Parts: sequence; C-alpha cells; structure tokens
Amino acid sequence: MLEKVDLTKKLSKEDYKGKMEHLEVRLGQLQRRCKELGIPVLIVFEGFGAAGKGLQIGYLIQSMDPRGFQVFPIKNETEEERMHPFMWRFWTKTPARGRISIFDGSWYRRVLIDRFEKRTKEKEIPDAFHSINSFEEQLADDGNVIIKLFLDIDQKEQRKRFDKLAKNKETAWRVTQGDIERNARYGEYADMMEDMLFKTDTDYAPWTIIESMDRRFATVKIYTTVIKAMADQIEKVEKQKAEERAAEEAEKESESLEASIVAREADREMKELQVSILSKADLSLKYTREEYKEKLKKLQKKIEKLHGELYRRRIPVVLGFEGWDAGGKGGAIKRLTQKMDPRGYVVNPTASPNDIEKAHHYLWRFWKAMPKDGHVAIFDRTWYGRVMVERIEGFCTKEEWQRAYKEINDMEKDLYDAGAIVIKFWMHIDKDEQERRFKERQENPEKQWKITDEDWRNREKWDRYEDSANEMLLRTSTDYAPWVVVEGNDKYYARVKVLSTVVKAIEARLQEK
Amino acid sequence: MLEKVDLTKKLSKEDYKGKMEHLEVRLGQLQRRCKELGIPVLIVFEGFGAAGKGLQIGYLIQSMDPRGFQVFPIKNETEEERMHPFMWRFWTKTPARGRISIFDGSWYRRVLIDRFEKRTKEKEIPDAFHSINSFEEQLADDGNVIIKLFLDIDQKEQRKRFDKLAKNKETAWRVTQGDIERNARYGEYADMMEDMLFKTDTDYAPWTIIESMDRRFATVKIYTTVIKAMADQIEKVEKQKAEERAAEEAEKESESLEASIVAREADREMKELQVSILSKADLSLKYTREEYKEKLKKLQKKIEKLHGELYRRRIPVVLGFEGWDAGGKGGAIKRLTQKMDPRGYVVNPTASPNDIEKAHHYLWRFWKAMPKDGHVAIFDRTWYGRVMVERIEGFCTKEEWQRAYKEINDMEKDLYDAGAIVIKFWMHIDKDEQERRFKERQENPEKQWKITDEDWRNREKWDRYEDSANEMLLRTSTDYAPWVVVEGNDKYYARVKVLSTVVKAIEARLQEK
Repeated sequence: MLEKVDLTKKLSKEDYKGKMEHLEVRLGQLQRRCKELGIPVLIVFEGFGAAGKGLQIGYLIQSMDPRGFQVFPIKNETEEERMHPFMWRFWTKTPARGRISIFDGSWYRRVLIDRFEKRTKEKEIPDAFHSINSFEEQLADDGNVIIKLFLDIDQKEQRKRFDKLAKNKETAWRVTQGDIERNARYGEYADMMEDMLFKTDTDYAPWTIIESMDRRFATVKIYTTVIKAMADQIEKVEKQKAEERAAEEAEKESESLEASIVAREADREMKELQVSILSKADLSLKYTREEYKEKLKKLQKKIEKLHGELYRRRIPVVLGFEGWDAGGKGGAIKRLTQKMDPRGYVVNPTASPNDIEKAHHYLWRFWKAMPKDGHVAIFDRTWYGRVMVERIEGFCTKEEWQRAYKEINDMEKDLYDAGAIVIKFWMHIDKDEQERRFKERQENPEKQWKITDEDWRNREKWDRYEDSANEMLLRTSTDYAPWVVVEGNDKYYARVKVLSTVVKAIEARLQEK
Repeated sequence: MLEKVDLTKKLSKEDYKGKMEHLEVRLGQLQRRCKELGIPVLIVFEGFGAAGKGLQIGYLIQSMDPRGFQVFPIKNETEEERMHPFMWRFWTKTPARGRISIFDGSWYRRVLIDRFEKRTKEKEIPDAFHSINSFEEQLADDGNVIIKLFLDIDQKEQRKRFDKLAKNKETAWRVTQGDIERNARYGEYADMMEDMLFKTDTDYAPWTIIESMDRRFATVKIYTTVIKAMADQIEKVEKQKAEERAAEEAEKESESLEASIVAREADREMKELQVSILSKADLSLKYTREEYKEKLKKLQKKIEKLHGELYRRRIPVVLGFEGWDAGGKGGAIKRLTQKMDPRGYVVNPTASPNDIEKAHHYLWRFWKAMPKDGHVAIFDRTWYGRVMVERIEGFCTKEEWQRAYKEINDMEKDLYDAGAIVIKFWMHIDKDEQERRFKERQENPEKQWKITDEDWRNREKWDRYEDSANEMLLRTSTDYAPWVVVEGNDKYYARVKVLSTVVKAIEARLQEK
C-alpha cells in the first residue's frame, strides 16, 4: 500500500482556507448529530515519527465541542497498564454512545514500535493481529465508527524534521534514540507498517493514508476522512431506523410467514436433541458436615498460601460464577475468599448495567474490572449474561447473542495470553432444590432480602435458561478457560468443589512455570 | 467442546418413526422454498472415521429432490486437484443459487487428517485456518447457508466398528492402516478436532456436534439441524425482502436526509485528495520501432525458455490484465504469448457473467479458471470487475464492493501460498489517446468490431473509473501479488514493459528455489 502513495501532494494557503471554513462547520454539525443518534466514534492516529500526529490532532479538535471528545496519548505502558492484559487500557478508553475518543498512538504499537524493538516477539504476532481485529470488529458490530489515519512521510523528510527538533534546545528532548534508529532503518520499519496495514485494513475499520509532507494537505484530508466516515454512519443508522419503522408498519398487515413457524418448530426439536451438559451432573453428591469442615479447612489453608505465591509470581486469576438463582454462588465465594488477603482480590457483583455501562459495549464494564497481574478478580454473575438473561429476555438481538460466543472466547483468550488463569463455575441445583431454598428464604426474615418476585418469574423460564446454559457451556468451554459444572444440591459438596478446583488450577500453573 | 458432549443419547424405533415422518416432509418443503428464493446451501459432514458419514448422507438425501443437490465425496487429492491451490476444488463445487452441495469430507481435511499425517506442516496451520474462515465468510456474505455437522463417536465404539468391518470380507478394504492409527491415537486426533472446532465455529458458519453412537438419534439430529438452518435463512431472506419493500415505499414519501448529502459531498472531496497512483505514470515513455523489435525478440526468446522451466518446476503463473478500453491489453497479451507453447497457457477473456456464473459467488468463475501447477493463466479483464464496473454501474451493493478488496487479497494470497506467481497489469493511457484509438477503430473496417456504443458511454465515466482504479491499486497491491501500471500511450513501450516484468518475476522466482 505504502509504495503506491504519492507524497508530493500540496495545498496552497488560499485553497486551504477556502476548504477549511466549510469543513469546520460540517464537523461540528456531524458531531452534534452523532451525539443525538448515540453513535460512538474512535479516531486513531498512527504513522511515522514526526509526521505531525500531535499537531494534526490539535487542528482536528478545534472544531469539536470539547464536552464531546477526549484525547488519549498512548505512550509506553504505565506500571498499572503493564500489569493488565494489553487490550485492557484500550477497552477502558472506548467511547460511550455519542462520544469521540481520539488516540494519539494506539493498540497498533504492539505490532509496530513494540515489534520493531522486539518487545513483541514474532511468535506473538499472529495472536496480536487476531486480538486487534477482534477488538475492532466487536466495536464496529456495536455501532462504533472506527477511523484509522496513517500519517505518511518519507525517510528524508523525517530526518529533516528530527534534525530541526534536535537543534532547538526546547524541542531536542522530543527526539529519542529510538526515533533516530527507526529513521536509519526506515525501510525495515516501513515493511512492518505495510504488514500491519494489510492485516488490519478491513471493511469494518479501514485505514486511510494521510500524505503528511504538506501540513495543510494532511489537515484537509484528515477532516474530510473523519467527516465522510461520520456522515456514512449517520446515513446508515438513519436508514436502519427508517427500515425498521417501515417494516414494523408492514408487519402489522402481513400474514405470519411459514418459514418462521418451521424455524420455531425446529428450534424446539433441536432443544430436545441438544447436548445436555447439565443433565449429566450428579446432584446426589454430598459431604457430611465433618468431611466438609475438614476439607474446607485444608483447602482454605492452601488457598491462602497459593494466593501469596500468585502475587509473588504476578499471575492474575479470573473466576466467573454463574448458575441458578439460589445456586449457592454467594456461599461459595465467601468460603473461597475467607482466608485470602483482602488486598489481593476483588469480588465484582454484576447487576443490571447502569446508564454509563449501557452506553458502552457490553464487555466494557468487565474489561474495566479485569485484575492486575498477581491479583484475583471474582465475578458474581458475568459477561455470560449476554447469552443468558439478555438472550432470553430479548435485551439484545439474535445476531448479538449469536456472535457473543466468539467475542467471549476471544476476550478470555486475550486474558489467557496475558498470563491469567481463567475458570468459570456453573453452580448447579435442580428445580426442587431451588423451590426449597426460595421458600426457606421467604420464611427466614434475615434472608428475605435475597428473594424477589423476579426470582419467581425467572423460575418460570427454567427450561429456556437450561437450554441457553447448555448451549453456552458447549460453545465456550475451552482449554484456556474451562467451564466447571458444580453439583450444588449439597452446599458442602459445592463449596469444596469450587475451592479444590481453584487450588488444582493454581498448582498446575505454578508447576508449569 | 467435545469433552462436554454426551454420547449416550438414544432414540427408540417408535420415537424415530414418529419424528422422521414429519421431518422428511419438512425437508422437502424447505428445499423447494430455497430453490424459489435462490438460496444456496452447503452441508459439510466431518467427524471421526466410522461415525457413519456416508450412511447419514444416504438418509438425508432420501427426502430431497435429486435434481436439486449433489454429493461430493472428498478423498485424497486427485492428480488434477493436487496441481491446483487447495481451495480450488471446493470453490468449483460451491452450489449455484437454489441448489444444495453435500460434502462427505471437506476443506477441513487439511487441518484434520492431513495435519495428523503431517502432510500439512504446523507452520501452515494459521494460514489454513485463515483460508477456511475467509472461504466460509465470503460464501455466507453471498447468501449461502453453511451447515457443518461433526459426527462424534468414542474410541471404543470406533474400534468396535472397525473390527466389524475388518471381519467381513466385503467391507475389510474400507478399514485402512490410517484408520487403525487414528483409533490408536484417538486422544491426540481428538485434540486436533477440538482445535479445529474452536477456530472455525463462527456465527456465519457454526458447527453442530452430532452424537453418532446411536444411528437413529444422529439421523434425527441431522435432519433437524438442516431444517433449522434452512428455515432460519428463508425467514431472514423473506424478512429482508419485506423490509426492502417497506423501506422503498417509505422512501418515496420521506425527504432526503441531510447526512446523505454530506456523505456525497465528502465523497467528492475525498476523491480530490485521494492518492492518484495513475497520475504518476509517465505516459511520454516510448521506444522506436527498432528498439522495440530488438527488445521484443530478446524477451520473447527468454519467455519461451522460462515457460519450459516453469513447467518442469511445476510453478503456476496468474497474470491479470485490466486497464482502459483500447489500452492495449489484447496487443500485449498477443506479444506475451506469441512464442509460448500453447499447451502451457490459457487466455481467459472475461465478459459479463452468464446465467450460470451469475448464480454463483462472483469469484467462482475465476477460481474455476485458475491454472494447474506449471501452467500459465492469463485473464483479459479479471475479478477486479467487482470494484470497477460492478461498483460504478451499481451491479453490486456498496457493502459488496467494499468487502471485495479483502476477499480479493485473500484469494490472491491463497494462490501465492500454493506457489503461484501472481501479477496484475493496469494498461494505462490518457483520455486523448483513447479518443484517438476509438476513432481509428471506427474508421478502420477491420477494427470496427472492437468498438461499441458502450465504449463511448464508459468513456463518459472516465473520472469515476479513474477514482475506482486508484483506490483498487492502493488497496490490492501486495508483496505477493503486485499491481504494475503499464505506461501505454506508446504501444511498443507497453508491450516491452509487460514482457520484461513477467520475465523478471519468473527469473526472480526461479532463483529463490
């Protein structure tokens, strides 16, 4: 791609002024419209050093409402960032609906500067590209506009700019040894750029090359690119809304389609035939109180020790808890953490998303809560809500929950690749046991807060939850992030199984290293 | 995924009969409806040896109209197949709109049996998965239903079935040494299966595990899976059509949207700023008649020799010609092939697609024409029609031509990975030169057939063709399949450049090996 670029393009001062006046007005209008429609926008600035990224960002934001955007300079990782999976700091910076995030440098550094300086190993490169494409595809699927600008200058121009900066005492610090090195090996670095452009120039997040030898030309092309991408998305969203409205009207009149009946029918039939992972669980498994006490004590002691070891070895742990209401999640988590150092773990209870969370991708709030190296993050209900409650209650579309299996597998792979131990527990009880526990809660004044009308309503959808759970367990149990079904009719047995699973997983990992 | 499968499922004879009666009727109905709606269907049977793939295909096709499907057994490559890129034999077998292709074994063998027996090298595995996913995504995007069935049995059952086959004289030949080997190393093979399932279980082409210990259960689950996938797609297509109709109605009344105006405006602006690769071509380059004759003679002699060498070394060559009408494609191809052995090359003229071609993915007809190892395929007009004439004339949607850049890059990468030399030529002339040549053709009775009214009409769209060409050249010129812009105002110069480019590329490749 780069070899075909014509870097000689220029714009006269007059042409520039004439064009910019119009473009600046347009950008302001489009920003407001994106806000109204709730369209999130990401703008990525990448390219050669001294190509003018900072300068151009300055020009771009001049016509934007400052309440609607944020600029993120992406430099070397901070201590905090280094202790998280690589994509963590970008997930946490994705824009809410209607807002704009501008990245000065980005997630591409891992396959550019970090690759060039061998901080990213060559064998990690395929995973890194997979991770980048998956991130962008997920955001695009969620309605984000992704604008990727590649600022291009040639080797000679770059050298000239570095020299100029170096001569001036006030700017000399901006030219690093790495800059000089990359200029000297410009061709080699350009090959890496080329590789990156080809692997990540997708229809959902295309690259635009900005010829940046001439500052004015570059500014106009950046403005135009941003305007075009925003206008395209606005048009698309407006068209979609119009189509949906029109289709709703039309549906009222039309007879129901035969195909939809057959599809429903086949759905029901499929459910009967579906792999029932849950039905294989042996719910008669149990421990006596004595067995329980003895095992619990032993395991908690082990966990305490292992927790320290994890911290020293900087291994992060992610534990997800799902399962039936009253399945014993709380009790298990309590026993698991009882002897752990509270500075080393966090329990994240997952309720319905709040307004800020709703304005982001559904995985955003979980990414934010992912543990630092050496820490343990426990989730009481998880990102699996997407393929359970959101699926069943119609809080997301069929397309959305169907692609979620892959999105979740990809996220957990990212965590694993960053060194984390990832385990998901399904706390399993049968319907009778749930009824017994619900009634017990209702009758016990101290437990009444734990039971709501919604719990009884969800219970009525038991079969649909079971079907969804079976599909989820099948599609998302992986080597790197397995599901563990916990036979939970007996609380003693369940708690011990959770603890012993965690202990075994940590021990196995410690032996590996 | 596999470890979670419950293989104990069974169905009684009575249940089976009851269910099948209904399912068979349904399948027939859906096949007819798919035909009416022009929905193509691919059904893939994979799984463990002796799991009953052949048997189950027999049951499945019993309720299908035999005029509407074809079964393709995929065994070891034939001589012919081995001499083509791996995906070639599957592309050529993709169903036309409304038809069903059933694969007994498939493109997955490359990451299963071929991987297990080390015919696929481990370092080729990432490319193989990319290639598979890209193939399936392209077909799904084009409206194909892709149903992937994985027939699962356990090691013991497999052993039992092999033993039974081996004991009977008439079936003993069906059990190969490879079968015995894979049974002995069942766990290892299952791990490869697992890896494959995870890397290719996508929302556009999901896998369904068929528990195949019990024949009846498997048949019912296969029928149900196929029925569900077909009904879902029918529903989707019907809904889309209804939405489009409704939106058309609605559009008639609605005012035009502001965003669409801004988008058009930005489009125009972008075009001005776009990298113009073509404008850099120096069209004054030329040779005298003497220079031309001398060079041509020398180059043709070289080509003749190199062509033989290519054949001996089994290297395939793909040469694509695009460019302006009257740009000199025909003349260049003529000089290129003049001294080549006609048994070793084919020139494929690309006209508008015929009815059969229209009923397939747009890349299908080009895949069919890809050369065997050691052969040269020359395309006079190419698959780039998608992002040129089809884009400009509105023969495909914006989404379709936008994703075509990636599809084309992926296809050319497949060709390159299979060892091919791939070069694309853009025969470039300016507008004045074209007018001169058009007039010359009109005035010369022997050349009149070469010029039509359509040529003059296309000429009026010169600017739009130029913009599209520039974008195409930028997005699809790769290391492995470069674009070469041929300065063509002087025919002598153009022909020599084409020949010398081909010579250089072949020489470079021969030195590599």
